[in-house]
Amino acid sequence: MASVAVILSGCGVFDGAEIHEAVFTLYGLDKRAIEYQCFAPDIEQLHVINHLTGEVDSTQSRNVLVESARIARGNVKDVKTLDVDKFDALVVPGGFGAAKNLCNFALVGPDSKVTPDVLSACQAFAKAGKPAAYACIAPALISNVYGPGVELTIGNDPDTAKALASMGAVHKPANVADVIYDQAHQVLSTPAYMLAGSISEAANSIDNMIAKLAELLS
Amino acid sequence: MASVAVILSGCGVFDGAEIHEAVFTLYGLDKRAIEYQCFAPDIEQLHVINHLTGEVDSTQSRNVLVESARIARGNVKDVKTLDVDKFDALVVPGGFGAAKNLCNFALVGPDSKVTPDVLSACQAFAKAGKPAAYACIAPALISNVYGPGVELTIGNDPDTAKALASMGAVHKPANVADVIYDQAHQVLSTPAYMLAGSISEAANSIDNMIAKLAELLS
Repeated sequence: MASVAVILSGCGVFDGAEIHEAVFTLYGLDKRAIEYQCFAPDIEQLHVINHLTGEVDSTQSRNVLVESARIARGNVKDVKTLDVDKFDALVVPGGFGAAKNLCNFALVGPDSKVTPDVLSACQAFAKAGKPAAYACIAPALISNVYGPGVELTIGNDPDTAKALASMGAVHKPANVADVIYDQAHQVLSTPAYMLAGSISEAANSIDNMIAKLAELLS
Repeated sequence: MASVAVILSGCGVFDGAEIHEAVFTLYGLDKRAIEYQCFAPDIEQLHVINHLTGEVDSTQSRNVLVESARIARGNVKDVKTLDVDKFDALVVPGGFGAAKNLCNFALVGPDSKVTPDVLSACQAFAKAGKPAAYACIAPALISNVYGPGVELTIGNDPDTAKALASMGAVHKPANVADVIYDQAHQVLSTPAYMLAGSISEAANSIDNMIAKLAELLS
């Protein structure tokens, strides 16, 4: 049975992992009889957003690993402990948490750096030639992991595409249900909620990506 | 197009709405072209559970409506504003939040009372003869909404079933994928994570319940 590591970035679209994308990732793996283990960095979130008002709640702080445990029903591990030898592939769902907690793309755009423990984990899959799949805004990590020339998509937002291109990536415009596959790097990406107008569109986007990943693992 | 109200109870299995169940509820409705609107009570959660350790975090409090907004991507309303005339049916996903924030079954068992604004909303659907679907532990609300004699399931846990029976319900033992339908009261229930051993089992349980609900609305 194949086994996949999933890196979460909190719990909630505006300051953490996009919940629907994360759930469809886990479901897409499980229904194809692929085991998964969730991981997250043991760091404070960039900030906490009140998801009802959209405003920063500066009265509190939350930990990415602890909040990710809400999506994982408690079963999540510090990404520092991720041993690439135990997994066949990696998936990183989106949400602003991917661009705020896994890296700082939301703050500095093309000057973005990946959070050290996350970078080590992602690069381990790259070095091992094991496939990895990034959804929504999570492809903002890819250039720093793979270096210049890697093909990816975040859908069709011109400013985001331009920022990623200036980091060295080759951005491929895509529709919500499309999956971009960089065969040389073994990297998949799909727009999910960068373009999805409904939960069904997000579900299809993620499921298409997981289906392609499962094909690579079969 | 049919329209369904969904009552959430926070965001996270141990102190709020079960995230997977809530997501599969919204997806099950949307993929069948049924509109939905999320609601939640504007009250403090009973408590905050650190989902990594399972322990109560007594240093903080969280609001049920605000945390539910994480699952609803911001689009959630105070359950006090739920107008039954605008909806064709109701769904209440599970998670401990259903038994801690929507009522106090987790604390007092058979002496449980439903949170006033939630009780009003649920009873409005009962009085209107509009169907309602409760998953996982959310059927703990049903006796207080419908009165004695209503048929429901929480799976097969003997202590929980006994507590619900002592509140006047007729508990029907069920497997995870089963949906119990009380035709007289127009109430559906399914065990979901009361029995599910995997996210796929939870998905199937919820989807079977939403499929039956869609049938009643067609």
